[in-house]
Amino acid sequence: MTPLPTTMRAVQLQDYNGKPDSLRVAEVPVPRPGPGEVLVKVFASPVNPSDLMFITGNYGFKKPLPATPGFEGSGTVVEAGSGMMARFMKGRRVACAAADAKSKGGLWAEYVVTSAQFCVPLIKKVEMEHAATMLVNPLTAWALVDAARREGHRAAVQTAAASALGKMVVRLGQKFSLPVVNVVRRAEQADLLRSMGAEHILNSSDDGFDDELRRVCHKLGASIAFEAVAGEMSGRVLRAQPQGSRMLVYGGLSLRAVEIDPSSLIFEGKHLEGFWLSAWLRKRNMISQLRVARQVQALLAAELKTEIRARLPLEKAAEAVAQYAADMTAGKVLLVP
Amino acid sequence: MTPLPTTMRAVQLQDYNGKPDSLRVAEVPVPRPGPGEVLVKVFASPVNPSDLMFITGNYGFKKPLPATPGFEGSGTVVEAGSGMMARFMKGRRVACAAADAKSKGGLWAEYVVTSAQFCVPLIKKVEMEHAATMLVNPLTAWALVDAARREGHRAAVQTAAASALGKMVVRLGQKFSLPVVNVVRRAEQADLLRSMGAEHILNSSDDGFDDELRRVCHKLGASIAFEAVAGEMSGRVLRAQPQGSRMLVYGGLSLRAVEIDPSSLIFEGKHLEGFWLSAWLRKRNMISQLRVARQVQALLAAELKTEIRARLPLEKAAEAVAQYAADMTAGKVLLVP
Repeated sequence: MTPLPTTMRAVQLQDYNGKPDSLRVAEVPVPRPGPGEVLVKVFASPVNPSDLMFITGNYGFKKPLPATPGFEGSGTVVEAGSGMMARFMKGRRVACAAADAKSKGGLWAEYVVTSAQFCVPLIKKVEMEHAATMLVNPLTAWALVDAARREGHRAAVQTAAASALGKMVVRLGQKFSLPVVNVVRRAEQADLLRSMGAEHILNSSDDGFDDELRRVCHKLGASIAFEAVAGEMSGRVLRAQPQGSRMLVYGGLSLRAVEIDPSSLIFEGKHLEGFWLSAWLRKRNMISQLRVARQVQALLAAELKTEIRARLPLEKAAEAVAQYAADMTAGKVLLVP
Repeated sequence: MTPLPTTMRAVQLQDYNGKPDSLRVAEVPVPRPGPGEVLVKVFASPVNPSDLMFITGNYGFKKPLPATPGFEGSGTVVEAGSGMMARFMKGRRVACAAADAKSKGGLWAEYVVTSAQFCVPLIKKVEMEHAATMLVNPLTAWALVDAARREGHRAAVQTAAASALGKMVVRLGQKFSLPVVNVVRRAEQADLLRSMGAEHILNSSDDGFDDELRRVCHKLGASIAFEAVAGEMSGRVLRAQPQGSRMLVYGGLSLRAVEIDPSSLIFEGKHLEGFWLSAWLRKRNMISQLRVARQVQALLAAELKTEIRARLPLEKAAEAVAQYAADMTAGKVLLVP
């Protein structure tokens, strides 16, 4: 192996104010892995909704500034700290995450140190570029659909159905014969889902949307909801679901509060809770995590495929963020060091 | 026993429009109990928040009009249909409910037919007037505090703490050594609770309320909330609670949607659900219901005491509703046929 450089380029967040100049590239020392940790030479890292939340201070935690964003990506493990798992990863191609308050670095850099537990060794057929977006969206989609199947829901309803994650839920539903009711906001999004073979598509801008949503949710038994919009959309979907339904909120794209009719909770026995991938993973043991990672990789080229619309260098991080934020349904933007 | 009359006076709801003249007294036939049912000669029946919701069409169900309101009350069983339980009730003093979509009548009448299962025989020391308000508030307060104790919450936080039900929660908390954080909106309400010996009282109109609420909820471990206000209050309380907390919404006094910060759900693992006494009772078997009813009666003169501020005849039902709606914390208004 070629010897490691002593410094590297890394994007550094200077402020949580959300302005473009809060993201700058700096030359910083290459970090070294501690016990149980690995050093990954980053191949690529996407801009995700969770990154947008992090850089604007709206994520589940803040890090001391300057901090390097980038919660997931792919790369090669070039150095390992002590510990069996870390040593096992050395030399392997991995998908990895730094989605933890304790992670020192982020993936928008040439190198990152992360826990060996947050690395998934790639099987041969998976390409590095596909692996860059393997953890956050595919795992979340997988976890949501898995919850629906395990708990015996006859069908699911989802909002933001045309998002990268929404489309994965559509394809997983098709694969596992779980009917999915898809809620979108625009006619083009409905067309897009139709072209994928989605069956139940409702546009919330259409007249009669609420009645039709209620009819379809009751007919199919959509007693679980995957909600990423918040605002009044949460309450409209929960109201449309059958008695005793459950709603998992995994995002708040409208940047508004979740608005729920008290009657849905009191008289209809409906429940509301959140879904956070980090918390979901922490609840599982390592064997179970690896099993899920293998299942997700097997579906990565098809059901859990991510479309990439642009590849930009670290120096264009602010542009990458702006491009992605402007239209989140047109494919992912990758940062490639 | 004196023979039953053939007709009786009953309040009849003419419209769900919430106007005073939607409530009129009519002379109607005395109903007869079917299998498993009893005929109760009503002693008294209160105006509850659930009645206000029912007469304005905002309750969990609507009945065909004209319908007689009144979900709870006390009286004497004067006739029984077939069935062991109905016959057991005959001649007894009871607290009873008609809080079910299938109940034909309501308690704002001289007589009511209800299921024997919805009757609780009174123990000697309980007075008929106290029994009139025994089921809805005392049972709900008991159920909420019981949930907190069973699930091992170290403390609870409640909104609308100065309401009849809120005060019962305060006293039950004192009895069972469950610290309760009480949220009120006005200084007089804080004084009232202080005079009852409540320890943790926060006025949501005060500066710094949110920080202080957060501090107290975290210090005491108030991981369960009893919420009856809705609107932004729900979200403020949920935000103040520790990680993984649970909120039970049992009312919506502000007549607004429950507003919740998605972060509370996603990143803090908090849950939101409703509480409805009818649904809670349906989930328990009869033995368990009777045991609870006995425990509640034992506390009826003290911890679960209701203050009565007015006793009005059926003809003044509209006035009773208006009086109660104008100030729900000044004691109950009873209709006495």
